[in-house]
Amino acid sequence: MQHLRVIAFDADDTLWHNESIFERVHERYRELLSRYHDAATVDRTLFATEMRNLELYGYGVKGFTLSAIETAIALTDGKISAEEIQILIALGRDMLAHPVELLDGVAETLDLLSGTHRLLLITKGDLRDQQRKLDKSGLAAHFAHVEIVAEKDAATYAALFSRHAIDPREFLMVGNSLKSDIIPVLDLGGHGAHVPYHLTWGAEKVDRMPDAPGRFVQIESVREIPSLLGL
Amino acid sequence: MQHLRVIAFDADDTLWHNESIFERVHERYRELLSRYHDAATVDRTLFATEMRNLELYGYGVKGFTLSAIETAIALTDGKISAEEIQILIALGRDMLAHPVELLDGVAETLDLLSGTHRLLLITKGDLRDQQRKLDKSGLAAHFAHVEIVAEKDAATYAALFSRHAIDPREFLMVGNSLKSDIIPVLDLGGHGAHVPYHLTWGAEKVDRMPDAPGRFVQIESVREIPSLLGL
Repeated sequence: MQHLRVIAFDADDTLWHNESIFERVHERYRELLSRYHDAATVDRTLFATEMRNLELYGYGVKGFTLSAIETAIALTDGKISAEEIQILIALGRDMLAHPVELLDGVAETLDLLSGTHRLLLITKGDLRDQQRKLDKSGLAAHFAHVEIVAEKDAATYAALFSRHAIDPREFLMVGNSLKSDIIPVLDLGGHGAHVPYHLTWGAEKVDRMPDAPGRFVQIESVREIPSLLGL
Repeated sequence: MQHLRVIAFDADDTLWHNESIFERVHERYRELLSRYHDAATVDRTLFATEMRNLELYGYGVKGFTLSAIETAIALTDGKISAEEIQILIALGRDMLAHPVELLDGVAETLDLLSGTHRLLLITKGDLRDQQRKLDKSGLAAHFAHVEIVAEKDAATYAALFSRHAIDPREFLMVGNSLKSDIIPVLDLGGHGAHVPYHLTWGAEKVDRMPDAPGRFVQIESVREIPSLLGL
C-alpha cells in the first residue's frame, strides 16, 4: 500500500472510545428496568426500537435517547415514572458531554501521517456531537477535510471521491466497522484497514468478510499504518 | 446585484414550510399541559429549556423532542404520564415524517436560476432530517453543493467560501433569518436577500438590522430574485 496518497479515518471507536460509553449507559438502562424484565429482553427490545427508528432518527445520541425512552415506556406498560424518564434524558446528556478519550497511538500516528499524506476524517452521526468530539480531541488540525455524513455507504463514498477529486486506487480508509468503513470502500476500488474495537454495535455487524486481496488488511492498532504505507 | 455569480439558499422557511409545522406541535403541547399551566408559561419554559440545551443538542426535531419531554416533566412536577410522554415522542416522529411543502414560487425560481448561476443550499439542523427534506423536495438537482452545518455564523460562512473558492463580493445568500442567513454574510462582504417568513422562531430573532447599502435587500418572495440579478 505504498502508493496511497489519501488516508481517511473513521472517528468513533477508531480514533476515540465511543461504544464503551454506550455500553456503560446500557448497563444503567438494564438496572433501571430490571424490576420489569431480564437484561436480555431489555437489550433485544431496545435494539429493535433503535433499528425501527434508524431511518427516521439517523445515528447518534439524541436518537438513541428517544429510542431508550420509547422502549422503557413499552417494556413497563407505561408504569415507568417521569423521574426515571428524566434519568434517561440525563444519561443522554452525560454521553454528549463526555470527555473524548483517544485510543492508544492515535495522536502520534496522525501527527506522523499528516506530514506525508492527505488526511480526511469521515464519520457519521449527529453533526454537532461529532464536531464537538473532534474539537475536544485536539486532532482537527491534522485533517485536510472533515466529512460528517448521514450514512456511510458506497453512494456516500463515491460522492466524497468526486467532491475531493480522489482516485479510489490511491485511497485508504481506516476504521473499526467492516460494514461502514471497509466494505463500501473496497467495492469502489479503494483500500481498507480494519482496526477492530473490542465492542461492536449490533447495527454494524456483518456476515460478509471482505474479499479484496492486496487492498484489505486487518490491524490491531493504528500504530501499524505508517509501516503499511512504507514509512 | 447583477454581478453576482453564486446564489445560496437557506432551506427551512425559505424553500419549504417548517416553523408552521413546529407551531402546530406547540399548540398540541400547550393543550397537553393546559391542566397544569397557562399557554404563556408553557411556551416560555419550553423555550428556556431549548436555549439551555442548544449547545449540547444543536438544532432539529430530535433535540426539540427531548427538550419538550424534559419541560413537560418539570412543569408537571413529574405527574405527566408515560402515555403522554409517548405522545410527545409521536409528535416528534410526525414532524420528521411530515411532507415537504414548498413555498410559493420556489420551484420555478430555482429552475430558472440554476441555468444562469451556481446555486448552493446552506442549512442547519439534523443531518438526516435535512437530507430527507431535500430529497422529498425534488429540488436537489438544482444545487451544485449542499451544505448541512451545525451553526450558521461568520466562521461557518468563511469556511464555506474558502472550501468552494467563493468570492463573497459575488455571493448572495437568500433566507428568512436575519441572524443566520443575512448578517454573518454581510459581515464578510457578501450580499443578503431577506425573505421573511410569517413565523420566526425565538432563537432566530435579532435586534440589529443590517446596515450594508447596496448589499442588502428585503423581498416578499423568492420570485423577486431573478429581477434583482438582472434576469
